[in-house]
Amino acid sequence: MNSFPSSLQKLIRALQTLPEVGPKMAQRIAFHILMLEKPELEKLLSDVEQGYLHTMFCETCGNFSESSVCIICSDPARDRKKICVVTEPQDIASIEKIRTFKGTYHVLGGLIDPLEGIGPEHLHIARLEERAQNEEVAEIILALSPNVLGETTSIYLKRHLKERFPSLRITRLARGIPMGTALEYADEITLKEALEERKEL
Amino acid sequence: MNSFPSSLQKLIRALQTLPEVGPKMAQRIAFHILMLEKPELEKLLSDVEQGYLHTMFCETCGNFSESSVCIICSDPARDRKKICVVTEPQDIASIEKIRTFKGTYHVLGGLIDPLEGIGPEHLHIARLEERAQNEEVAEIILALSPNVLGETTSIYLKRHLKERFPSLRITRLARGIPMGTALEYADEITLKEALEERKEL
Repeated sequence: MNSFPSSLQKLIRALQTLPEVGPKMAQRIAFHILMLEKPELEKLLSDVEQGYLHTMFCETCGNFSESSVCIICSDPARDRKKICVVTEPQDIASIEKIRTFKGTYHVLGGLIDPLEGIGPEHLHIARLEERAQNEEVAEIILALSPNVLGETTSIYLKRHLKERFPSLRITRLARGIPMGTALEYADEITLKEALEERKEL
Repeated sequence: MNSFPSSLQKLIRALQTLPEVGPKMAQRIAFHILMLEKPELEKLLSDVEQGYLHTMFCETCGNFSESSVCIICSDPARDRKKICVVTEPQDIASIEKIRTFKGTYHVLGGLIDPLEGIGPEHLHIARLEERAQNEEVAEIILALSPNVLGETTSIYLKRHLKERFPSLRITRLARGIPMGTALEYADEITLKEALEERKEL
């Protein structure tokens, strides 16, 4: 790397700050960039900058948005009785892909993680409560990752919301054997729950 | 992806044009970029742009350079009797890392590839000949990849240069078993050459 000119070294180092981009990959991307025509480079830089400048977060749910309220929250056809709670805005895109959920969303912005000093007060829980109070919400679907942090946060939310809104239905995504995997790779907890929740064929 | 605002979709698509960056990784990089502070984004964009604008190619050897002649070609301590011929400018950095080669370089800019319509006239061979004629070059070391294209190009260069400069020594990198690999993974040609070229212990 030492024999590269300093501006090329800087370019490579800048790319290495991106997630999952190691030194070798940063070099390959840098050489690709050097081979671009000037207008191609300008388009790349402008798309990145414009994406950064114009992507905001929805004031209601925390989804990515180009205005103060996102396209889902501003869509009158969405069912405001159901709020699906997710960890990050990108989780909304995953659920939207299945095209069957017609409710709205709420982004927590993280999970409760005592070891990292992240408590409920660091998450967008107050805003969720507000929504549960103001909107005629009947059900909150917790769609957090089924790991220790996700479970902790789900249990906290369930207790916390039930206390304040006893009539609110609080659900979580079903657990079971995912499509396309071999049974032998399923962990015991998943297998146990999949057996308990078995369905008629 | 459809539920993302259009400027975010554009940002993700722009990142996907980079080598080895698939849709998932482009999303992860985009979310990382959205979380940057404004000055961090500006530094990233500026480092990329400055790297692009200031990296040129050495007029003599084709190496990356910030001026018309690269630091290696302009270094009086380098041995002009030896020219190491490589495929791409980044190969120079690999050889420089071992710190033992004190000669100069020449970047071909590709390999002869008849199927892709790349003939000798598309590579920087004329410039290499010029150098072999003007400078007091005694040896040309071919450091091309040991695959079909690299071999074809090496054979072409050897014949072509020998015709014009019969006294020129033309060598290629040794072939053998690389450090750290298991013998069972060595291909037959490599193993055969490694055996023929065996050295006293």
